Amino acid sequence: MTDHQLMDLLNQMTLQEKVGQLVQLATPFFEGASDRGQITGPMEDMGIDDEDIKNTGSVLGASGAAEVKYIQKKHLESNRLNIPLLFMSDIVHGFKTIFPVPLAIGCSWDTELAEQSAAIAAKEAAVSGVHVSFAPMVDLSRDPRWGRVMESTGEDPFLNGSFARSFVRGFQGNLEEDHYKVAACVKHFAAYGAPEGGRDYNTVDMSEWMLRESYLPAYKAALDEGCEMVMTAFNILNGVPSTGNKPLMRDLLRNEWGFDGVLISDWGAVKELLPHGVAANEKEAAEQALTAGVDIEMMTSCYVNHVSELIEEGKLTEALVDEAVLRILTLKKKLGLFENPFRDADEEAEKTFILSSEHRDAARELASKSIVLLKNEELLPLSSKGKTALIGPFATSTDILGPWSWAGSPEDTITLETGMKNYVPGDELLIAEGTSIETGTAEQMQKALEAVEEAETVIVALGEHSDMSGEAGSRTDIRLPEVQLDLLKQVKELGKPVIAVLFNGRPLDLTEVIEHADAVIEAWYPGTEGGHAIADILYGKVNPSAKLSMSFPHSVGQVPVYYNNYNTGRPKGAPDAQIRYVSQYLDSPNEALYPFGYGLSYSTYHYSEPELSADEITKEESLTVSVEVKNTSDVAGEEIVQLYIRDLVGKVVRPLKELKDFQKILLQPGEAKQVQFTIDEQQLRYYHADLEHTSDAGDFEVFVGGSSKDVQSKMFRLID
Amino acid sequence: MTDHQLMDLLNQMTLQEKVGQLVQLATPFFEGASDRGQITGPMEDMGIDDEDIKNTGSVLGASGAAEVKYIQKKHLESNRLNIPLLFMSDIVHGFKTIFPVPLAIGCSWDTELAEQSAAIAAKEAAVSGVHVSFAPMVDLSRDPRWGRVMESTGEDPFLNGSFARSFVRGFQGNLEEDHYKVAACVKHFAAYGAPEGGRDYNTVDMSEWMLRESYLPAYKAALDEGCEMVMTAFNILNGVPSTGNKPLMRDLLRNEWGFDGVLISDWGAVKELLPHGVAANEKEAAEQALTAGVDIEMMTSCYVNHVSELIEEGKLTEALVDEAVLRILTLKKKLGLFENPFRDADEEAEKTFILSSEHRDAARELASKSIVLLKNEELLPLSSKGKTALIGPFATSTDILGPWSWAGSPEDTITLETGMKNYVPGDELLIAEGTSIETGTAEQMQKALEAVEEAETVIVALGEHSDMSGEAGSRTDIRLPEVQLDLLKQVKELGKPVIAVLFNGRPLDLTEVIEHADAVIEAWYPGTEGGHAIADILYGKVNPSAKLSMSFPHSVGQVPVYYNNYNTGRPKGAPDAQIRYVSQYLDSPNEALYPFGYGLSYSTYHYSEPELSADEITKEESLTVSVEVKNTSDVAGEEIVQLYIRDLVGKVVRPLKELKDFQKILLQPGEAKQVQFTIDEQQLRYYHADLEHTSDAGDFEVFVGGSSKDVQSKMFRLID
Repeated sequence: MTDHQLMDLLNQMTLQEKVGQLVQLATPFFEGASDRGQITGPMEDMGIDDEDIKNTGSVLGASGAAEVKYIQKKHLESNRLNIPLLFMSDIVHGFKTIFPVPLAIGCSWDTELAEQSAAIAAKEAAVSGVHVSFAPMVDLSRDPRWGRVMESTGEDPFLNGSFARSFVRGFQGNLEEDHYKVAACVKHFAAYGAPEGGRDYNTVDMSEWMLRESYLPAYKAALDEGCEMVMTAFNILNGVPSTGNKPLMRDLLRNEWGFDGVLISDWGAVKELLPHGVAANEKEAAEQALTAGVDIEMMTSCYVNHVSELIEEGKLTEALVDEAVLRILTLKKKLGLFENPFRDADEEAEKTFILSSEHRDAARELASKSIVLLKNEELLPLSSKGKTALIGPFATSTDILGPWSWAGSPEDTITLETGMKNYVPGDELLIAEGTSIETGTAEQMQKALEAVEEAETVIVALGEHSDMSGEAGSRTDIRLPEVQLDLLKQVKELGKPVIAVLFNGRPLDLTEVIEHADAVIEAWYPGTEGGHAIADILYGKVNPSAKLSMSFPHSVGQVPVYYNNYNTGRPKGAPDAQIRYVSQYLDSPNEALYPFGYGLSYSTYHYSEPELSADEITKEESLTVSVEVKNTSDVAGEEIVQLYIRDLVGKVVRPLKELKDFQKILLQPGEAKQVQFTIDEQQLRYYHADLEHTSDAGDFEVFVGGSSKDVQSKMFRLID
Repeated sequence: MTDHQLMDLLNQMTLQEKVGQLVQLATPFFEGASDRGQITGPMEDMGIDDEDIKNTGSVLGASGAAEVKYIQKKHLESNRLNIPLLFMSDIVHGFKTIFPVPLAIGCSWDTELAEQSAAIAAKEAAVSGVHVSFAPMVDLSRDPRWGRVMESTGEDPFLNGSFARSFVRGFQGNLEEDHYKVAACVKHFAAYGAPEGGRDYNTVDMSEWMLRESYLPAYKAALDEGCEMVMTAFNILNGVPSTGNKPLMRDLLRNEWGFDGVLISDWGAVKELLPHGVAANEKEAAEQALTAGVDIEMMTSCYVNHVSELIEEGKLTEALVDEAVLRILTLKKKLGLFENPFRDADEEAEKTFILSSEHRDAARELASKSIVLLKNEELLPLSSKGKTALIGPFATSTDILGPWSWAGSPEDTITLETGMKNYVPGDELLIAEGTSIETGTAEQMQKALEAVEEAETVIVALGEHSDMSGEAGSRTDIRLPEVQLDLLKQVKELGKPVIAVLFNGRPLDLTEVIEHADAVIEAWYPGTEGGHAIADILYGKVNPSAKLSMSFPHSVGQVPVYYNNYNTGRPKGAPDAQIRYVSQYLDSPNEALYPFGYGLSYSTYHYSEPELSADEITKEESLTVSVEVKNTSDVAGEEIVQLYIRDLVGKVVRPLKELKDFQKILLQPGEAKQVQFTIDEQQLRYYHADLEHTSDAGDFEVFVGGSSKDVQSKMFRLID
């Protein structure tokens, strides 16, 4: 279809048909949906009828080639102008082959594997009929109480931005030409990751300076990569809900950034302008959202019931509607739906691709590269000899896919037990739950302790069930449930070395876990191939290389803890600092228990002092930072070499460290490699108080190391 | 001295003399100070000499008429133009007669007694030679981790503003005419009460909308009341430290609000622009602070060492210095120091006024009205019969004055034991510490349990030592120390009804205290007369009437919890709310354990339904809210009747409730009183997204009750 034809189509549409394109409804609303069931009630509640369904522009949550094709076919039969439906779904970390949760992927620092994971997700989703994935979610978060931290790659603007780009590339490829690609939808615009008190959907408030400095870069990175869609956030910003926030959406996203793709509300978020208290009724909600630039209203009916009236009253123009419709039709055109409304939906391809061994291998590889070794008292890797007790509620659990893995199946999931059987003969592996996740019995405990008594090696698999994080999964207590800590303590008291393997979706307060375990592996929710991946790590087939992309606090009372904080006027530990009158807690360190960038390996690495190619540069020049990293162990390993910068004096305060680059390198035993980074003026820019993004001449400290806390530094100067 | 003479004086001053006026140093720097001792080292470190001391404009922390007079006399002999020194001190909640900490005063909702407390503090300070008090501190705070919450009156803009006005009136009276008055200095401008993570001096970040909506009103209230001085905050705001923040100080405070009094840095805050990372050296710090409008530099020497040079280089103008000097000289003139440089300093008056019985009575009264009864299982008030065990580290402690009571003395302090002796014969009062504050021995515990066994009535006095809150007193754990909770549990296990009396400076997580105590009294740090006041409450001489001015959370993981929050788009408990997908914690209520406005009495009150004089008003009209409050008990009591409003639909989100007015009424047994409040359009204004402070026509809900959670409501409408 040509642009001209598209305009032609638009011109043929009635206002009602146009508004229909702005509506997104879930699968059950459509003829042919397997779960259509009793949809009359919800339709009545929404004030919509079959005519509205016929005009609807997009579908939420459908999947499966056969069903999607059937719904599309029926729709085209009933839609006057034969405009195909767009099928959209939450494909967050895999479709049927589930990859680790994004926070885990963040810890891999492996943007290539991340891209591959999105490409595989796209492939499986595309053959199942999906056109758009509601991903990547790139919300920066510093608060582990918030359940959706599992869905973000972490706390750093640069790292989140790098992953945002990877995911978009993986999902979209060349959307108009490639097969098996889906449009990406970056979310949640903006700053959804900073809800007050870590409580999901709660108030977000920050200065525009902070917004631009820390929260916006990852969304921008996704858009720079060509991300087709943006989803609004549930939260307010500067007192106004994002979904009705004209300065944010129209002025910044559309006008300043030039985004001309489709902007969709999050589920029900247009109507939520009512409980937010900024719209008196659905009509006002429709007016505000459309004025702000929200093209598609997801799952509520403010647009369909009120836009015509608003135009009649002169409160909206039909041009505004045309603009939104054209963006939606353009996306359909890009996806080739006018020519082939089924796109890649293909029952045969579903059988071939979904959960293919290639996909499973990729999931296993990414999982093993996402697992963070937090503590290791010379215990890991394990040899396969002797009896091994595998204890804990996650020993045999398939609840390791994590939130937002709705298409994944427990029956396809490799449990830790299954993974361990690759290394330990079945009769040497002693399994006992010990406790359930939040409650336990004396009998469970007894059996576990008996298994431990009998074993030489003890692995305790603990964690949060997946509903304890994810959307609306906020918690005030970020320790493991008491019964699990109790299990760990009782196991430890038997005197054997204990390995804790953790399954969870947020940075936890691990104080007690560390105290009672000799080795601690943060496995996150590792996905379909989780059990294999963890076993690969435990037995040294894979050398752990992941590094935390979000800080682990000492306790919830210390939140937020993040590495790129500011110095304050009274920094703790400064040479001339007073004992009391410094910025500190009386009862806790300021720093994280495990900082950003931290993660152990079975290898040891030695970093040479970094060398700079110049000690000053002009704004047109660049310099090279070189460091030699040597594997000083007898096992090959991958190391994530991190480059941080501090601008010593700014017009506004500058972070103590900012990640500016990183490289992941493979080092054979004894091997040394020269790692080089380039620094130029662009990387030294920051948002000034007037929101100008520029650099200032002056001194900078550049840090290189294997963690944000374990670095060596050199100084250089930017001159005018 | 006339204005003309003042200008004459300014014109006679050398630049060096002018800059001297901008310097504030602590007492030991001055000849005649009793603690002068070895000041040569510090002077050398600061790069200042005796000549600079001679030119200095003001003194920090001096007190005592004899010393102040001597220092002033010596200074006038050495100062070329005979410009008297200004003597400033932190007189936060009393001078020698210590009143409850401000957070406790906030719970009295008694702005008259608050004014009286400031007037008494002013009187004692004035006769001791003090001219300026660094108070009131009016920083709104929602984070009990922050140690300085004890210094604020709480979490509400309106209540804080009401107290701000009272304190300013009490300190200043008619400064130019009245005796025994001191100039007030409102602090810390701005938003010092919102440090990230509750860690003192840490990053503050918020939108300007939030700043104006919640944080600025109390400072503005103090200035509207004529407060002479303002102190800068240590924190950054919008990325720039307050002390060098031109948009905040010059543009907002000076130009928009028209403040023309003296702006002083907090201790060392000018030089702290260096560690903040916005000034490369002291010279830049001086330039930024003076440009921002900071007149006096406290305790560092950036101004004295660099201002002349900055003027020579054309980076500052002498006019800017003149402006600052003139503000300082004008304050000296207002205080009459040119005519009487000693003002009220008077050794005889010190003896008469300080700790007079009148002052002690006022302190006792305010303390008893600040003590909040949190729980009472029909146990209080006590009768004096039978043996009474008074257990716990605060049984006999004089550490009940609280932080910022440096001039108060333990020997003048009435302990709880002493107070109890007014009601219990000495031989019937069994005292045992049970535990120290943070550590305890088995022996201590044993003695306590023995005393409890012997007694009929058991009072356990627990709390935080005063260093656990106050400046730089931030904590991640806001429970009482483990040993004290253990004492309470062991005492409770003996089966007798237990009354817990708490001494602390922040809202605590009282979950375990409530579980193990049958009555709980929040005594805060009650001041010099604390023991008397608490005993008066325990034995019913005073009927408790205080209501919390800051919410108590269920746990630190729930922070921040405050009553005037926003609804969100997915409010918990809404009629059509989903079970999971609402703004909630999985493991905790959203609401406070004890909300703002909450506090029990020995009386019970019945509120009639509120009645409105009109159900709609124009912007020129007002309406009256009437409610009948009846004391349904047989004991007289004071009730704090609270009026809240909710703007149902705004251009930005509006709080679920906002305190708009309150009245404290005395009701005899069985007595009913009609309470009337007036509402007009001014009270319905709020900050819009464009920062305009206006009202919108629409529906409002008005609530009346005895706590923010215990209200009845009516609707009215504002029409254009």
